[in-house]
Amino acid sequence: MTINRLNEKLSPASTVPLKSVSIHDPFWTSYANLAREAVIPYQWEALNDRVEGAEPSYAIQNLRIAAGIEQGSFNGFVFQDSDLYKWLEAVGYRLSTHPDPHWEAIADEAIDLLEKVQLPDGYINSFYQINGLDKRWSNLTEAHELYCAGHLIEAAVSYYHATGKRKVLDIACRFADCIDNTFGTEPGKIQGYDGHQEIELALVKLYQTTGEERYMKLAAYFIDERGNSPAFFLDEFEKRGRTSIWSPNPHMPDNTRKPDLKYFQADVPVREQKHAVGHSVRAVYMYTAMADLAGLNNDPTLLEACRTLWKDMTRKQMYVTGGIGSTHHGEAFTASYDLPNDTVYAETCASIGLVFFASRMLRLEPKAEYADVLERALYNTVISGIALDGKSYFYVNPLEVWPHACSCNPGKHHVKPVRQHWFGCACCPPNIARLLTSLGEYIYTTDAASRTAYTHLYIGSEANVQLGDSTFKLSQTTAMPWSGSASFRLSELSGSASFSLAFRLPGWTNGNRPTVLLNGQPLADSAAEVRDGYLVITREWSNEDTIELTLAMPVLRLTANAEVRYNAGRLALQRGPLVYCIEELDNGSKLSSLAIKAEGDFATETNDNLLPGAIVLVGEGYRDTEVVEADQLYSSASIPQPEAAAIRAVPYALWGNRTPGEMSVWIRYRN
Amino acid sequence: MTINRLNEKLSPASTVPLKSVSIHDPFWTSYANLAREAVIPYQWEALNDRVEGAEPSYAIQNLRIAAGIEQGSFNGFVFQDSDLYKWLEAVGYRLSTHPDPHWEAIADEAIDLLEKVQLPDGYINSFYQINGLDKRWSNLTEAHELYCAGHLIEAAVSYYHATGKRKVLDIACRFADCIDNTFGTEPGKIQGYDGHQEIELALVKLYQTTGEERYMKLAAYFIDERGNSPAFFLDEFEKRGRTSIWSPNPHMPDNTRKPDLKYFQADVPVREQKHAVGHSVRAVYMYTAMADLAGLNNDPTLLEACRTLWKDMTRKQMYVTGGIGSTHHGEAFTASYDLPNDTVYAETCASIGLVFFASRMLRLEPKAEYADVLERALYNTVISGIALDGKSYFYVNPLEVWPHACSCNPGKHHVKPVRQHWFGCACCPPNIARLLTSLGEYIYTTDAASRTAYTHLYIGSEANVQLGDSTFKLSQTTAMPWSGSASFRLSELSGSASFSLAFRLPGWTNGNRPTVLLNGQPLADSAAEVRDGYLVITREWSNEDTIELTLAMPVLRLTANAEVRYNAGRLALQRGPLVYCIEELDNGSKLSSLAIKAEGDFATETNDNLLPGAIVLVGEGYRDTEVVEADQLYSSASIPQPEAAAIRAVPYALWGNRTPGEMSVWIRYRN
Repeated sequence: MTINRLNEKLSPASTVPLKSVSIHDPFWTSYANLAREAVIPYQWEALNDRVEGAEPSYAIQNLRIAAGIEQGSFNGFVFQDSDLYKWLEAVGYRLSTHPDPHWEAIADEAIDLLEKVQLPDGYINSFYQINGLDKRWSNLTEAHELYCAGHLIEAAVSYYHATGKRKVLDIACRFADCIDNTFGTEPGKIQGYDGHQEIELALVKLYQTTGEERYMKLAAYFIDERGNSPAFFLDEFEKRGRTSIWSPNPHMPDNTRKPDLKYFQADVPVREQKHAVGHSVRAVYMYTAMADLAGLNNDPTLLEACRTLWKDMTRKQMYVTGGIGSTHHGEAFTASYDLPNDTVYAETCASIGLVFFASRMLRLEPKAEYADVLERALYNTVISGIALDGKSYFYVNPLEVWPHACSCNPGKHHVKPVRQHWFGCACCPPNIARLLTSLGEYIYTTDAASRTAYTHLYIGSEANVQLGDSTFKLSQTTAMPWSGSASFRLSELSGSASFSLAFRLPGWTNGNRPTVLLNGQPLADSAAEVRDGYLVITREWSNEDTIELTLAMPVLRLTANAEVRYNAGRLALQRGPLVYCIEELDNGSKLSSLAIKAEGDFATETNDNLLPGAIVLVGEGYRDTEVVEADQLYSSASIPQPEAAAIRAVPYALWGNRTPGEMSVWIRYRN
Repeated sequence: MTINRLNEKLSPASTVPLKSVSIHDPFWTSYANLAREAVIPYQWEALNDRVEGAEPSYAIQNLRIAAGIEQGSFNGFVFQDSDLYKWLEAVGYRLSTHPDPHWEAIADEAIDLLEKVQLPDGYINSFYQINGLDKRWSNLTEAHELYCAGHLIEAAVSYYHATGKRKVLDIACRFADCIDNTFGTEPGKIQGYDGHQEIELALVKLYQTTGEERYMKLAAYFIDERGNSPAFFLDEFEKRGRTSIWSPNPHMPDNTRKPDLKYFQADVPVREQKHAVGHSVRAVYMYTAMADLAGLNNDPTLLEACRTLWKDMTRKQMYVTGGIGSTHHGEAFTASYDLPNDTVYAETCASIGLVFFASRMLRLEPKAEYADVLERALYNTVISGIALDGKSYFYVNPLEVWPHACSCNPGKHHVKPVRQHWFGCACCPPNIARLLTSLGEYIYTTDAASRTAYTHLYIGSEANVQLGDSTFKLSQTTAMPWSGSASFRLSELSGSASFSLAFRLPGWTNGNRPTVLLNGQPLADSAAEVRDGYLVITREWSNEDTIELTLAMPVLRLTANAEVRYNAGRLALQRGPLVYCIEELDNGSKLSSLAIKAEGDFATETNDNLLPGAIVLVGEGYRDTEVVEADQLYSSASIPQPEAAAIRAVPYALWGNRTPGEMSVWIRYRN
């Protein structure tokens, strides 16, 4: 039994709070600016239905109707409120790092609206407040009430930390109290949980912000209850007369409406789950809360479940781009090694949730494996999700695109060769915004017990670090992801102090130990310890101490496990955290006719048109001769021969920002 | 304008009627026996709902209810009647070649039932007769009334030719008269056509059998009317209140029900159609009738449309196995070069329809290209559709199967690694049965004008040929598809006569002229003409003349047009008419790890366990070393290296008859 095997005391590390980290980084500043200057304003217009040509959001309108300010009916998805909450969360992060009275005033106005919507018992949900409160809590499976509540709570916590204003935090607490009064094992309460996990991780944040233990216990209740028998979702399905929001047609067979428990990760209790299954965003949001609770409750069984699910997800079901969810049917995981490149889903939101989960695991166990995956998701699928102008988005992040097939084959209609503007189901854009505006939270953690400050991500920044009784500023300067150097400087330390600084040794260094200079002098290997993928330097530190790291950044030729049939005979290119891809614009059409040399060097070139400072790769390869006549499909005349051709690869994160065309991550090789 | 460009007089060739051809062929006799001894009896049980474990058909029950013999409601698909008709058509063919009082009695019983079902005005359709005649002809788009009528007519023609009994032919004529009274451009008639083409080709057969010109004109009316503006299906949709049989939910948006005209090949008039679009079976059934009518009406515009659609379909959208229809969404064509191997549809029925269309084109223009495609479809996708025991069937004929992905990925749920028993929508099994039992019709045609008897297929058989005023018996003996020899002997000729015998030079001979012996002596090249892919020998023939052909049957390495991205770096193997594939049982799992040598010979081995006399191919190839550790997904450690491995390939037609596992037609190659 895992319970007996584990005998460890968990002492989760702390994040360095967002307010204490400011990012100054050529690469990331542009993304953060995008979120601040383009995404948040655009989304505010969208939430207010003022974007011409975009599908209306109805989010604000619904809330105004619920508040009695306007007349009308509910529009949009049942979870439409959450779009405003995610936006508000992003605004909170933005104000934490870049205070701005204009956006604070707009946010306050939105919060005033929420105050008006809130019922005396704390409940807020425009769908049920407009369509009939008698039905509230009657369809947890589908109606997203607790999901929306969770996003409200996350927004409240973010905004409170940014501004110190309690109004929205109080609104969130009242709603959380309402939920606490409604759900649980006590008689008279609903012994259930939400169809879309989110409330759990949000309640953890609310507990961490307010210190109110009931919120943490409520989060633990939702996690512990999930998947028990008899199945709550099936009971609920029967109780509400086998109806479904999504398939209201009573003439359709029941099995089109009956909840698929695996989709909701509710088929077995979470501690018994061995494989990542079902809707991928639901999954990673749940795993995030599980990891939070494992640490907070020192719960080794939950930690073991997290490790099991982590391994299954990242070592059996994750794309090389950090994408998860192989199928658009249910936006879901399929099973081990089923990672098709062209019919993939790999939703942007799922990789954002993977960043959340990875960051929680990293707090529990500072192992570079977690940060490697976090970085892989962040630098590839997450930022691939947003155009360089911040105005269009990918929901689906394919690894292979042939625009002709995407348009003509319904099995690929979900795969878009160009980013799309605001969506009816607008989950990804605000999710990107909240991640980009809170990026500072993911760079560092501190472990007071071992007096260690960890650097997980190489992102230029200044962090005010509290480590036990020591405080100091750690300034990081880096040219990543374009080259492997990162410099650190200590300041604002009172006198000197003994502690450890730990720097991640990314997997992409391919095992090369970095060059390390301490105050300009080479650091002896013996003066640093390598622990779980981190270079740990323990010494008496003083102000103005500097560490200069040079990490090897070779161009990696990645091959996939042979179980992944789709990638046989192919390799992927990676340099630093960036996975590369080939695009039609640089390589001509019929990318599948190209093959790359299995060995040999790549030239790196700067392509400022793609993004200032962007490095592209140029390698030797081949293009198959065309042997079949244009008006024929098949020929036995001869086999294509390889002719020398240069292969130009660009960072996957930047694909689709120029002339639309074919794209491929996995490239055939010849050896 | 095409009308001006064409200036040719069509003189379609004739088929040698089924009754005049008897098949004696080691390969095909077993399939014909299967159809006769296993399929027809099994399907009769199925039609009567007596197959344990199979979904009930309800076909007979519905008709009994419609006839007033039983009480009850309609069950099954709206087109369920057609299953009986297709079965009856097959029984007719069977009785043509193998008279049998037992099955004739059973068929007569079914015909008696149909007589009881038929209304005084000639109408027969159990769905509307049970559910309300007031609604008949109100939903041509979806309800398949004329489709069912077409299959009744085909059955009637088949059964009449077999037995000379007129009863079912009279039933069919009465129904055809009813349809003729109902449809047309005259005032008071419905100016429409069926959602599923079939009636058109059936009416042609009825005309050819009865000589009644109205039936041919009615067929031409349906073809000429189709796709005109305003769109009949859209008008009908409005008239019936925007309802749909398939999506009865009135709360769903209209666009889920509104007919997609392309799906029905009704977006533009047939003569303006340039691409094969929509539901693939509907398409090829329509093209078949178009080709029939082009010949009957000497209509060059229709011929030109047939040629255009033929080229588009076979040179842009056809799998190397002769499968058509790239997507299961609508069982449809997608567009040029979109031929995914693993999410393919390639319905068995569609390839059967392709055989129909090809045979009609061959009558119009005896060009080997048509017969090559006919043969490709027949020897690969069509017979792949049926298990060697005749008891299970493929609807979908994939070119690449990984059973794990088929079960875990919803985008591949339609692809089955093993053949299935009777289906609720049982179109393919009876379609295979009627093709296998009528195979004799596809081997020979005669062109009286040029006094030429064509041999299109190399299938051991005896044919009683009528060529103008000459009659003779042509006896064919062949070892195909396993080796390239075919011998022909003339007999029963009165005296001697001058005419031409034309023998197809299949594409798979790769341009090698065959060895030809005339009466045991080599035939000089100058004594035969090669015309449109046929070797034409014109001389004064006498009884006991023999022709011995030896066709080269090399193992072909086929490559696909580079536009077909899916097949880049891969080749397919073909020998004679048979396309080959590799199966897991012979090659181990992870077939994608295998690559075949781009050059070099193959050994041919006999594998009697697969099928007596079956030739399998053994070639040199490689298996990639596995370089990624079992518990990892990706690695940059090294690139897989090729290790020598034998590649064993079996005929695609026979795949899936042993231990289920992976299968692939397109195999990576190394050069």
